[in-house]
Amino acid sequence: MTLPPLSSASKRALSKLGITYPIIQAPMAGTSTPLLASTISNAGGLGSIGLGASNSTAAKKMILDTRKLLDPNKGGKFNVNFFVHSTPQFDPSSNLKWLEKLKPHFERYGGTIPEELKVIYKSFKDDDDMLNVLLETKPPIISFHFGIPPIHVLRQLKDIGSVLMVTATSIEEAQKIEKEGEGLVDFIVAQGYEAGGHRGIFDPNGPDEKLPTFVLCSLLLSTNTNNNGAQVGVGVGVKTPIIAAGGIMNGRHIKTYLDLGCAAVQLGTAFIGCPESSVDQGFREALFNPDKSRCTMMTKYISGRPARSICNKFTDLEKEIQLEGGEVVELPEYPITYDAGKALHAAAKAQGEYGYGAQWAGQGAPLARKLDAKEMLETLVREWKEAEGMSSA
Amino acid sequence: MTLPPLSSASKRALSKLGITYPIIQAPMAGTSTPLLASTISNAGGLGSIGLGASNSTAAKKMILDTRKLLDPNKGGKFNVNFFVHSTPQFDPSSNLKWLEKLKPHFERYGGTIPEELKVIYKSFKDDDDMLNVLLETKPPIISFHFGIPPIHVLRQLKDIGSVLMVTATSIEEAQKIEKEGEGLVDFIVAQGYEAGGHRGIFDPNGPDEKLPTFVLCSLLLSTNTNNNGAQVGVGVGVKTPIIAAGGIMNGRHIKTYLDLGCAAVQLGTAFIGCPESSVDQGFREALFNPDKSRCTMMTKYISGRPARSICNKFTDLEKEIQLEGGEVVELPEYPITYDAGKALHAAAKAQGEYGYGAQWAGQGAPLARKLDAKEMLETLVREWKEAEGMSSA
Repeated sequence: MTLPPLSSASKRALSKLGITYPIIQAPMAGTSTPLLASTISNAGGLGSIGLGASNSTAAKKMILDTRKLLDPNKGGKFNVNFFVHSTPQFDPSSNLKWLEKLKPHFERYGGTIPEELKVIYKSFKDDDDMLNVLLETKPPIISFHFGIPPIHVLRQLKDIGSVLMVTATSIEEAQKIEKEGEGLVDFIVAQGYEAGGHRGIFDPNGPDEKLPTFVLCSLLLSTNTNNNGAQVGVGVGVKTPIIAAGGIMNGRHIKTYLDLGCAAVQLGTAFIGCPESSVDQGFREALFNPDKSRCTMMTKYISGRPARSICNKFTDLEKEIQLEGGEVVELPEYPITYDAGKALHAAAKAQGEYGYGAQWAGQGAPLARKLDAKEMLETLVREWKEAEGMSSA
Repeated sequence: MTLPPLSSASKRALSKLGITYPIIQAPMAGTSTPLLASTISNAGGLGSIGLGASNSTAAKKMILDTRKLLDPNKGGKFNVNFFVHSTPQFDPSSNLKWLEKLKPHFERYGGTIPEELKVIYKSFKDDDDMLNVLLETKPPIISFHFGIPPIHVLRQLKDIGSVLMVTATSIEEAQKIEKEGEGLVDFIVAQGYEAGGHRGIFDPNGPDEKLPTFVLCSLLLSTNTNNNGAQVGVGVGVKTPIIAAGGIMNGRHIKTYLDLGCAAVQLGTAFIGCPESSVDQGFREALFNPDKSRCTMMTKYISGRPARSICNKFTDLEKEIQLEGGEVVELPEYPITYDAGKALHAAAKAQGEYGYGAQWAGQGAPLARKLDAKEMLETLVREWKEAEGMSSA
């Protein structure tokens, strides 16, 4: 099991995470499963489960299920991911307005439109039960999306020995993680604009620089030097090791980001199509049809927060509503909008229409391959070695 | 002058372009100069001048000036760039509406608001005089932005021995270049969303997938293989060699794109701050102040076409107007809007306010370095070799 030469950042990451390859299967709530995560971990990568859309009971079951499937001889590591969004403000009038907009779509599929929308899950920062599940089950690695948990929570999670990771989409967010995390955050997941699924941006209503993964990582790592070898440029050079996420689809891409100075890489879209994932047939067909998957769009209309989906009925809906005379539609806050989205998807799916699914995928989707999870990880490692000029034997 | 090991695509590109290093200084109309272009070419790269905003007389002078400065012993190659946008439709009422919007800004600087806007330059496809300048001066390399010239024009330019390049921002545009160019286009410049200046998108009012350079190049090159070594995924695998453009700021970045399979790389923002460029002091100061240059924005408000500028008074203006109740502002067609933009910049600049300049720069801008053009090229080559593990001696 000879690995290509690794940077000291990557060596430290492998040691800290307790894994063989610096390859993380992204936590994809609704897509990753205990089987997918454990298969990746047992094969030497880091498997993840996305628990942001679960309540504490379901989350605990997922954690225990994953642990049961893990081979302790292979390290037994896994990552659990949570959403740290602001507490949603419930506004019945904006909820009803949004349902009114969706009405013709529900009617088209004979679905029953919900009478009111619900806050379908809590932010991690508002969920003491979830924190207790973590303190009890002690997952080895815990990652956060949309924001940073309060410092006293980070301290409790460090005290149980967990490695902590937080997503950043900009220099500002990375700096905030270092400052507010007071050195307790072990890794920053640098998520580029091309990444699939929910964009980790802290303020979904603020400006978005839309930095792609390669530029974001370059800026965070500040790899430029002048002729005297001194660093120049932004000089943010965050000290926390960086994990690149977004647009990474093969072993050559992995080598690129490791060469750039990232400690590890995180791939989501590459694993969506694995039979171990829980995506439905409609999503799978869209993913493996490059004529469909080559169009992805960042939209708030599915969940209430910007997220990248394969172009489908939902993204059409956004265009359609925008064309209605430039009216600005106020969506309910995340995840209230998602309640409507899920209901509409269920109604349409019952009629065989899969186009209202949250078909989260990144811009690299057309490069997705039909392989099972173990084969996929092995293929990525083989390609990474080949890109390094190593024999894959 | 030992080069790192090159792919066959890069070797062929160097031979076809007649240069030493697969590094192109981007043609930046209003920024690149005959001195900048010739310095890069004389140092072994490919220098470019942007003539899209010139009339045929000015263009001819620029071409002859560049040629005079080129060392024939160093190959004497250079690239000239033109804009192939649709013929602007002149609409006095939309022009006046836009001037009305800008009025308070002109007044703030005591400037005289133009009475009417002009079409300040022609599309290459409508400019027979420009074509005649090319047929007469026979530039070795000619590149096009915003579209493809008609096939009979491409044929005439091939007949005088010119190498031809066209920008693409999507798979569709690359396929169009191959199809409509009938094999006459030698290189596709794959421009990512992070690139500075005018986005080369063919239809500025159509949907924009916003593919970053790394993903766009990966998709065009279709580098994924399955376990049998066969290509999978989009399978567009365009046959025309790809030149990567956008976000490339140092030698490590150059290596990344060459490793990915690109034939060469094109850098604009890295060269903006060279003393040989023609940018004004305000632009230079913004570029070298990372607190300013780390914010860039794609905006139509300066020229009428989407282009990435350092955040300034113009990008503020866009936000301000968008906040006025979500009203959709119809801009005059490119380049008519630019006539207003240039006038406003001139008025403000006369009062010492540089913030209305077209401060075109890419998202990698904070990594820009204060080096003269020859030093910049040498530094890029040194870093590229170092990234390859070669001694730079």
